[in-house]
Amino acid sequence: MTRNSPTSHTDANELVLREDQGPVTTLTLNAPQSRNALSGAMMGALHTALDKIATDESIRCVILAANGPAFCAGHDLKEMNGISACDGHAALFSQCSALMMRIVTLPQPVIARVHAVATAAGCQLVASCDLAVAGTYAKFATPGVNIGLFCSTPMVALSRNVSRKHAMRMLLTGDPIDAQTAWQMGLISDVVEDDDLITATDDLAKRIASRSGMTVKLGKEAFYRQLEMPLSAAYDFASRVMTENMQKHDAREGIGAFVEKRHPEWRHE
Amino acid sequence: MTRNSPTSHTDANELVLREDQGPVTTLTLNAPQSRNALSGAMMGALHTALDKIATDESIRCVILAANGPAFCAGHDLKEMNGISACDGHAALFSQCSALMMRIVTLPQPVIARVHAVATAAGCQLVASCDLAVAGTYAKFATPGVNIGLFCSTPMVALSRNVSRKHAMRMLLTGDPIDAQTAWQMGLISDVVEDDDLITATDDLAKRIASRSGMTVKLGKEAFYRQLEMPLSAAYDFASRVMTENMQKHDAREGIGAFVEKRHPEWRHE
Amino acid sequence: MTRNSPTSHTDANELVLREDQGPVTTLTLNAPQSRNALSGAMMGALHTALDKIATDESIRCVILAANGPAFCAGHDLKEMNGISACDGHAALFSQCSALMMRIVTLPQPVIARVHAVATAAGCQLVASCDLAVAGTYAKFATPGVNIGLFCSTPMVALSRNVSRKHAMRMLLTGDPIDAQTAWQMGLISDVVEDDDLITATDDLAKRIASRSGMTVKLGKEAFYRQLEMPLSAAYDFASRVMTENMQKHDAREGIGAFVEKRHPEWRHE
Repeated sequence: MTRNSPTSHTDANELVLREDQGPVTTLTLNAPQSRNALSGAMMGALHTALDKIATDESIRCVILAANGPAFCAGHDLKEMNGISACDGHAALFSQCSALMMRIVTLPQPVIARVHAVATAAGCQLVASCDLAVAGTYAKFATPGVNIGLFCSTPMVALSRNVSRKHAMRMLLTGDPIDAQTAWQMGLISDVVEDDDLITATDDLAKRIASRSGMTVKLGKEAFYRQLEMPLSAAYDFASRVMTENMQKHDAREGIGAFVEKRHPEWRHE
Repeated sequence: MTRNSPTSHTDANELVLREDQGPVTTLTLNAPQSRNALSGAMMGALHTALDKIATDESIRCVILAANGPAFCAGHDLKEMNGISACDGHAALFSQCSALMMRIVTLPQPVIARVHAVATAAGCQLVASCDLAVAGTYAKFATPGVNIGLFCSTPMVALSRNVSRKHAMRMLLTGDPIDAQTAWQMGLISDVVEDDDLITATDDLAKRIASRSGMTVKLGKEAFYRQLEMPLSAAYDFASRVMTENMQKHDAREGIGAFVEKRHPEWRHE
Repeated sequence: MTRNSPTSHTDANELVLREDQGPVTTLTLNAPQSRNALSGAMMGALHTALDKIATDESIRCVILAANGPAFCAGHDLKEMNGISACDGHAALFSQCSALMMRIVTLPQPVIARVHAVATAAGCQLVASCDLAVAGTYAKFATPGVNIGLFCSTPMVALSRNVSRKHAMRMLLTGDPIDAQTAWQMGLISDVVEDDDLITATDDLAKRIASRSGMTVKLGKEAFYRQLEMPLSAAYDFASRVMTENMQKHDAREGIGAFVEKRHPEWRHE
């Protein structure tokens, strides 16, 4: 795969498509018939694709998109019901949680591009991304309560994005919320017109990818780590991160370029 | 008390009334003259009522309502001022905190139905419920600062619902906020027209009560536990909860009914 | 310095001006040419001014304002780039973090009065205050990513005020948000018309300063401490704080005045 030339893997049999445009890669969930259900195979394909990106220094931003009438319907219920042993379910939920953690720990930012409904673990997928751009057709719900299976793993991500009252409303009723409401609650970062969704997400990704990859990587990692610390410890940690950041070429170059009113030349290292 | 037949305890001398309608029970603070102040007696009556509900498997959702011109005015200041010993105050605040924890640890979801002003520990009561539906006449305030007694225990619940700037605004000024603002801040889950308040809350409660009681109980308990864990530990915990959930009759039944497009038959166990 | 008489230190050479009006003091960042950049000297001057206020029992509320076309542009980039040693940067970021902690640990509430753009550590300064009143011209951004230096210490304060998606949006893009959006996200406590900014902030400060200083001090300190505790421990702690509060003159006096419908006479102790 060469950089800067669009590449496309559109094998209709692939569960996750990858298309690179320079430093931005788009992963597309590609099981429209199952509403992109997170079957074991789908989760495996997505995790593998993310693992590859994690070590690909040419990629500096990831878009997570989906084909078909739904963004993602959550777990594959037929598959889940077909598993008889407790161990099988435990493995499935562990696989799902590991996938969500993989997004959080990925060096590059991940932007969910949500064109339609995202439910249960599909809503969790959106909540687990660093950013989420949604069109006005998008909806978000955690309806596990309707089928006797509370959205317990989705709520881990959901309740770290929105107020507990708003999270509980979604979890106890299963009611969908629209994109504007999701923005107000803090679940997503951007709402755009549906016709602008692809362009707006691409622009956002390109802008992020135009920055120093080293800086973004260091910042993303520090963001989630400091969130779990008390205030004083968080400052000690973040001060060390920022000091480390300042010793890098790209910080020196970026500040120099700013002072000299010219464009910076990143080395991304 | 028989299930599915409305029962009513409207003894005017009771501080907390209980009325059951099938699996939904409504507890009503019934001291209108004192604006439903949380006197020791009122807190005791409410705690006792909640304890009874906790072990009553026929109840699957609780509405917390109030009679009179106020929802709840917080502590009973005359009673509080009449206590001379430090130990007496300590006992009062411990009783209040234990009451709030009783709501959080109750197996069934609790919905505050707020028709009017909720202040100080009354605002805390709303913040401590899992959900809160308010009419447009409702107002929320933590005005202890006006009387030299900072709303320190109310802020525990308040600051876990809303942004620290919004919480501090309420705590340092004592200014009331209206229902719409409270929704925007995340303090309540629903705002409705005053005329619709009872119907909307009943509908919400009935819908929650129509789900598997086992599922809701398991989900509510897990919600508050995982909130206090780091992300990775929260996922480990929630994966175990969801695996346990999948081994229950109601999850199998719920998923089966969904796949077969029929109504599920819950056992609530 | 005498209480209740306005005093003014308007030496144009001072980096931080202090003006007292009774129990309210206004600290004004006074380096308009550098957009009030947080140079080592500016941070030192602000920290020193805050240290003095911390032990000045006549002051019960602090306004943090700024002169010139910007509220605060964050670190002084020329100064930062002129430092060659890692130790020098570490010292600078530690100094900045200590300044932010000084605001949080100050006994008196601090209100940011934001008339214009607050970026990077300037945005952090706003986020670190207890309250923040902004005019409609105000804007907030964490644009470090544009110059290769992620806003890692600003994000400690930012991410404790707003949803992680909203925080990440600001951190990964550097895009400014306006005052109304900042209020919706929870970053600030008040938005007012620009013409009303000074009056509204003064009124807010005077109202807070009119309350018992003991009560406010005790409440502010408890607020940040309980935020970092699990729910149950937070209640134990807050119950002890409230019991302690009740033993003070000002609580007895405040409750007595409320019951007797008269104005309280605070001793602030």
